Amino acid sequence: MPAPEPPTLTHVDATGAARMVDVSAKDVSAREALATGVLRTTPEVADLLRQSALPKGDALATARIAGIMAAKRTPDLVPLCHPIAISGVTVELDVGPAEVRIAARVRTTDRTGVEMEALTAVAVAGLTLHDMVKAVDPAAVLDAVRVERKEGGKTGSWTRPGDR
Amino acid sequence: MPAPEPPTLTHVDATGAARMVDVSAKDVSAREALATGVLRTTPEVADLLRQSALPKGDALATARIAGIMAAKRTPDLVPLCHPIAISGVTVELDVGPAEVRIAARVRTTDRTGVEMEALTAVAVAGLTLHDMVKAVDPAAVLDAVRVERKEGGKTGSWTRPGDR
Amino acid sequence: MPAPEPPTLTHVDATGAARMVDVSAKDVSAREALATGVLRTTPEVADLLRQSALPKGDALATARIAGIMAAKRTPDLVPLCHPIAISGVTVELDVGPAEVRIAARVRTTDRTGVEMEALTAVAVAGLTLHDMVKAVDPAAVLDAVRVERKEGGKTGSWTRPGDR
Amino acid sequence: MPAPEPPTLTHVDATGAARMVDVSAKDVSAREALATGVLRTTPEVADLLRQSALPKGDALATARIAGIMAAKRTPDLVPLCHPIAISGVTVELDVGPAEVRIAARVRTTDRTGVEMEALTAVAVAGLTLHDMVKAVDPAAVLDAVRVERKEGGKTGSWTRPGDR
Amino acid sequence: MPAPEPPTLTHVDATGAARMVDVSAKDVSAREALATGVLRTTPEVADLLRQSALPKGDALATARIAGIMAAKRTPDLVPLCHPIAISGVTVELDVGPAEVRIAARVRTTDRTGVEMEALTAVAVAGLTLHDMVKAVDPAAVLDAVRVERKEGGKTGSWTRPGDR
Amino acid sequence: MPAPEPPTLTHVDATGAARMVDVSAKDVSAREALATGVLRTTPEVADLLRQSALPKGDALATARIAGIMAAKRTPDLVPLCHPIAISGVTVELDVGPAEVRIAARVRTTDRTGVEMEALTAVAVAGLTLHDMVKAVDPAAVLDAVRVERKEGGKTGSWTRPGDR
Repeated sequence: MPAPEPPTLTHVDATGAARMVDVSAKDVSAREALATGVLRTTPEVADLLRQSALPKGDALATARIAGIMAAKRTPDLVPLCHPIAISGVTVELDVGPAEVRIAARVRTTDRTGVEMEALTAVAVAGLTLHDMVKAVDPAAVLDAVRVERKEGGKTGSWTRPGDR
Repeated sequence: MPAPEPPTLTHVDATGAARMVDVSAKDVSAREALATGVLRTTPEVADLLRQSALPKGDALATARIAGIMAAKRTPDLVPLCHPIAISGVTVELDVGPAEVRIAARVRTTDRTGVEMEALTAVAVAGLTLHDMVKAVDPAAVLDAVRVERKEGGKTGSWTRPGDR
Repeated sequence: MPAPEPPTLTHVDATGAARMVDVSAKDVSAREALATGVLRTTPEVADLLRQSALPKGDALATARIAGIMAAKRTPDLVPLCHPIAISGVTVELDVGPAEVRIAARVRTTDRTGVEMEALTAVAVAGLTLHDMVKAVDPAAVLDAVRVERKEGGKTGSWTRPGDR
Repeated sequence: MPAPEPPTLTHVDATGAARMVDVSAKDVSAREALATGVLRTTPEVADLLRQSALPKGDALATARIAGIMAAKRTPDLVPLCHPIAISGVTVELDVGPAEVRIAARVRTTDRTGVEMEALTAVAVAGLTLHDMVKAVDPAAVLDAVRVERKEGGKTGSWTRPGDR
Repeated sequence: MPAPEPPTLTHVDATGAARMVDVSAKDVSAREALATGVLRTTPEVADLLRQSALPKGDALATARIAGIMAAKRTPDLVPLCHPIAISGVTVELDVGPAEVRIAARVRTTDRTGVEMEALTAVAVAGLTLHDMVKAVDPAAVLDAVRVERKEGGKTGSWTRPGDR
Repeated sequence: MPAPEPPTLTHVDATGAARMVDVSAKDVSAREALATGVLRTTPEVADLLRQSALPKGDALATARIAGIMAAKRTPDLVPLCHPIAISGVTVELDVGPAEVRIAARVRTTDRTGVEMEALTAVAVAGLTLHDMVKAVDPAAVLDAVRVERKEGGKTGSWTRPGDR
């Protein structure tokens, strides 16, 4: 759909300078975002991670906690992100035949969305898995880190289109 | 291929408990790692980012700097990573037809490798690009975050095999 | 006393996975917590700390400030804590015959309580005292770090029972 | 002018102990602050910085982004500052004949003002410029870091008097 | 016992001002510290934590990882601590009848000891346990945080005396 | 004076992209830097700060400690700074008739100089003083933040020329 006004990058001003966009005028409202990603590795490593799902098997827990903590660090990492009052985070890890699927849900009641927080949780959980498997599989790949769905705020709900 | 000793996850002990592996006995030596990744977006956004490569066009610079700073924050993000004396970081961004290719090189003179630092730089540069384009393309995807090559240390050089 | 429903750990879900509990539905309200602890050391060290309560005697000030700053860092340290809009912190240090008594009061107007912030302030003030006395008394002990009282929120006031 | 009540340092209590002042009773309201500063250097360095305002010239962008990120880190740096929900930040850099003028505007909707955030953004942008020019001009000076204007809150607007 | 030279606080100068002591002249050497502590809670909570030692039972893992990460944050928390190249950390948690025993071992090859890192790991693991059990037992107490043993450096080995 | 090679900004590459310069090839050596600055305020505020130099008078201690802690945070704040093994920091505050003079000395044994760490300590000590006096003097100014002297490393000693 051709827009009357061409799209622009909101995070730079008319001269191109980076800025943290002013959200003072936005409403405080409940918002949620779901992001996913996948660490592709080998069947052998997937087995090792599944075994770590035994008592005191901390490998998956470490990645889960790293993801939750990273969601809170998002404004420290992504320069133009606003500090956000995160009200809830879950990180789910699902070990498949030769990969680990990662899903992070973040909720807030604030002035901006939390898709960056959800993406950051996924990315850092993925990096942490990479760190734990790299001695066995240095060629692991973090793939498909993306937003699946977000809700709340003025723009309302958005669901990832099937063709992307 | 059956190994004489089955591979194990080095970051958990025999009972499965997470630990930061002791590297005291490793030699201090020059080490380097190269990691890459790609933010897949639309041709329209790729054009906007290229335009931002004009005077005062900070969009790419913001991602580059976020990646460099994130390399230094790796041990704060990835729970079992050692703090490392990073001696150099570069982050290159290459805007293609509908994507941005990201490459990070990290060097150190320390007791462990820097592939996690390079991967973290790539991931956070990618998240930062995502943040800047999300108002125009909420469906952007961070893909193929992986180590290409590492050098130095006891294990010597490693180059990504062609089939992974 | 047998409860109708057995108590569970709120910070793990039904499968045992760690999560940051969603507090979106909780009311914003004024809350306060008081935590205390004690660093047990020697009479000699207690004297040195008392002397440091002279002009430019920074030893106690250092611990007080470390405690205040740590209260703000709580969500960075305690993985499942929510980021909180702390509205006030005091840390009191009282040098006794062979110990320093520590008391931290934290206030907020937010969706969760601040007992973790108060406990963190006490613990880090205690660690900082330990750091300053360790050359003279490496055997100092941080003891009895606990919540004394909290107010506000849905559950209302709680005061430490006499038998704990 | 003799005040009815002598002014006191609000950040220490009656005994002189540092504290984070309780702002629970203050209203949430829109607030803004403008701070400025100047890095004095040589005409030669000013030329180099102007040249860096070419495509991929990241020197000024690096300082701008460092300033924006530092505004978010203010409560980590300044011990008695409250954590604040910053809602917008801009950092402007203006290269003059032998200096760079720095201006930071910070907005919030919270219980305290944001002049410390604006001052921190200016100071860290200035330090970052210093870092980038120090190989060419180790004698650069960061000068005149100060608040120009603040608005909002109970005390209303304040503009820097002409004689300070 | 009258010492030839009275002991002083090393972290303040002759006027009482806080300082980070200069360790430039100290040798780089392998050093290790062991610290312990205990979270006292109820038999009911101890049972819940033991149950969490089941598959995907992240409660203990969360505390273990929080402790390891906190060891790396020690110089950010304890004002006069030196940044240290930590080379290894383990945190052990042992659930007893009505308490959790915490033990942290930290190793380095650097110019100062790591007892503060070990104590910080114990304290933050304990705070994290407190956070997880506080809905069930708000009266839990973190007790007996102390150094058991340290090795390496000029002063050589130190073992906690039996009477402290 | 025409140089054989024109000076360039070392922190950007030939295309202008920001980078953390590789210092792997530099020698580890003892280095020291002294930086100074001044917070200009009113005689009335200078009196209040002097009074705070009484028992439990934490105002100056707070600034001193903030400066020391900030030195350790330099690589988190200044994007292209290397992480450095700081081996000692002092911050001196001298209250004059209507100002506070700030001096920070930082030492290291590493591959780069510590002038940025010393400047950061001065700037953050100055910001902290500003925070504490701003209720009484919102017009205070942080001035003349600069390096006075540095020693060690390949380039040897540098002392600020008299005419800058």
